[in-house]
Amino acid sequence: MNVEVVAVGTELLLGQIVDTNSSWIGEQLALVGLNSHFQTKVGDNLGRIVDTLSRALERSDAVIVCGGLGPTQDDLTREALAELAGEQLDEDETMIDTITAMFGERGRRMPMNNLNQARKPASAEFIPVQPGTAPGLVLPLQKGVVYAVPGVPWEMKEMLSGYVLSDLSRRSGDPAAIASRTLRTWGESESGLDELLAPRMAELDQLGNPTLAFLASGVEGLKVRITAKAADTATATSIVDDEADRLRTLLGPLVFGTDHDNMESAVLAMLEARGHTLGVAESLTGGLLGSRLASVPGASAVFRGGIVAYHPEVKQQLLDVPVGPVVTETVALAMARGACARLGTEVGLATTGVAGPDALEGHSPGTVCMAAVWPGGEAAITLKLPGGRQQVREFACISVLDLLRRRLMTDDA
Amino acid sequence: MNVEVVAVGTELLLGQIVDTNSSWIGEQLALVGLNSHFQTKVGDNLGRIVDTLSRALERSDAVIVCGGLGPTQDDLTREALAELAGEQLDEDETMIDTITAMFGERGRRMPMNNLNQARKPASAEFIPVQPGTAPGLVLPLQKGVVYAVPGVPWEMKEMLSGYVLSDLSRRSGDPAAIASRTLRTWGESESGLDELLAPRMAELDQLGNPTLAFLASGVEGLKVRITAKAADTATATSIVDDEADRLRTLLGPLVFGTDHDNMESAVLAMLEARGHTLGVAESLTGGLLGSRLASVPGASAVFRGGIVAYHPEVKQQLLDVPVGPVVTETVALAMARGACARLGTEVGLATTGVAGPDALEGHSPGTVCMAAVWPGGEAAITLKLPGGRQQVREFACISVLDLLRRRLMTDDA
Repeated sequence: MNVEVVAVGTELLLGQIVDTNSSWIGEQLALVGLNSHFQTKVGDNLGRIVDTLSRALERSDAVIVCGGLGPTQDDLTREALAELAGEQLDEDETMIDTITAMFGERGRRMPMNNLNQARKPASAEFIPVQPGTAPGLVLPLQKGVVYAVPGVPWEMKEMLSGYVLSDLSRRSGDPAAIASRTLRTWGESESGLDELLAPRMAELDQLGNPTLAFLASGVEGLKVRITAKAADTATATSIVDDEADRLRTLLGPLVFGTDHDNMESAVLAMLEARGHTLGVAESLTGGLLGSRLASVPGASAVFRGGIVAYHPEVKQQLLDVPVGPVVTETVALAMARGACARLGTEVGLATTGVAGPDALEGHSPGTVCMAAVWPGGEAAITLKLPGGRQQVREFACISVLDLLRRRLMTDDA
Repeated sequence: MNVEVVAVGTELLLGQIVDTNSSWIGEQLALVGLNSHFQTKVGDNLGRIVDTLSRALERSDAVIVCGGLGPTQDDLTREALAELAGEQLDEDETMIDTITAMFGERGRRMPMNNLNQARKPASAEFIPVQPGTAPGLVLPLQKGVVYAVPGVPWEMKEMLSGYVLSDLSRRSGDPAAIASRTLRTWGESESGLDELLAPRMAELDQLGNPTLAFLASGVEGLKVRITAKAADTATATSIVDDEADRLRTLLGPLVFGTDHDNMESAVLAMLEARGHTLGVAESLTGGLLGSRLASVPGASAVFRGGIVAYHPEVKQQLLDVPVGPVVTETVALAMARGACARLGTEVGLATTGVAGPDALEGHSPGTVCMAAVWPGGEAAITLKLPGGRQQVREFACISVLDLLRRRLMTDDA
């Protein structure tokens, strides 16, 4: 089954927004084993949207059209579907109630043009997952099926994951089941991983199933994705399980988690298993470390809080850091200890350094001192991290978490 | 003149790489006043590349095809151009020398397959700017012109800026210059803005120049983009300036900045102008507010730090919040005052609430209490914010910053 993606929006053509939606959809389609041969961006022009969709339906079995479902005059995807179906757009009373209720819940006045979003061609159905005020549409046509989803990424993703992908799989009737798992790694380059896994990859090239793929993900580390195909899901999953065990043995402590784990969730889980609580003290990361920890559901069982000591006086007054230079491992350790003391935790992490663009205390941007303290130990490192201001801060967060993770693993061994 | 962009590469369809090249090219085309109605991504398949290019040439005057110029077997753009021209690919002796010399200069062995890059159809010319080993091609056809450039972003950009864009302008014969400006707004829905600006948009529809576009940017608010065309850049800029002034009058305090401003930088600039320093106290945002403030270059002149009081005990011990429920405006105000006291600042901001997925103290996820205190005033609000855990936290950050911004503007008035 071939599925094509059409992204609607003049702002995409003008480069005001990078179309990350199509990339994400392409990745999801590949994961469920659906082919995707074309992706098109088209502006807010009814004739051109209809042309693009017609052309896509000629050569593919299904089309996902993303964007143009807002309430304003330049939101034309509904009109395009009506033209494809040869039908008019009619208001749906139930959907009017739904949208009105959504505005009511949020305590906001509903502009009348939002009722546009309740219109649909008779042969289309609303997608039963509706995270925002814009309902999605599914329109079965003689030549194939069109799914219209909003361009707002989180709304689009909820509709795809909650409805469109499974509906496509159902329609495709492909008896092959696919299972995949991603091992998350940190601390080795792509070529380094390639060397470690080369013998196993040569074996898998012979076998043909499962397959491995590397995915360089910047500050998220390197992902190793295992994909297996089999007659049923249980068999595919079992192949993936076996391969994951084998690769974990080969990669050792480089692997910090699987699939939706991230470094924060991995470290929080290790601490929760030990019954420890965590506090952080941040200078150049400015709250990013705490924010990443707090973004893990259930973080509150472990993470008590943090001190963002951006100004040197705050380091001294709240974290008992001595007056003097701040880009040192000694300061990082004092901050981590100060976090434990102030926040009443057993474990403390700290970052201090130079995010840039200017140098500080003679250190170039990217110089970061990090420290971890835990019952029975403490550690500090200085790294020279690559990239701009934001990237340095993100690398600093994952690096200090990995510092703690590795040391706790060593303590266990 | 209409120019279409085609990006070649199976990795783009699979979402392994986000196609930022097309967005960048789209932006450059708009800046020189060239229209761009379609952008297509196609995989490494000769038939589909030829189909896509043929279709693009039917409806546009020029096509920029990006990628597929490497030395390996899956680099098929040269073959596609040969098929479009109805010609064979011939090796060009001069280009063989050029590529061989490039490898020599870098002290690297040249794999023989790099000679593939010296092949071209007879009626195509090499693009005279060649930053890497992959030469670009320009192929004039009866129906239009095709430019083939590499997919490596820096090589593509040098070829576009150094040759393709000026060659296109020369061919189009259009002397028009373009200027644009984006007004950043917060606090009104897209349809609400549409209502406020409807009369002016009707006038502009008559005039035809400048044009307005709305860009919903989620937690970044709504952008209103003004674009003007004129005989020269100075005139276009002056048209944009006048329109921006007019829209600011219509939109009032909804506008918080222009172009590269964001809410953080806007608030920091207001506080710096007043000589005030800022501290934050965060519960559900977990450090995100501090992190966003710290991401503004030069933030340290205003932003002193924050207290991430994730656990209720930390709120009590570090921020003097009374024991009791934490999702209240009273607690938010106490936290903001506590931030000022602990961090030694004149201005304090605070967030507390329910990020989800579970309810807390009987409040559903998305319920957020926010407070701001400043010399001469304080304010608190409770909002019900949409979306998942991360989005609620991002909305909370921009909302509390906007609360302070609006109140400071009112104080000024």
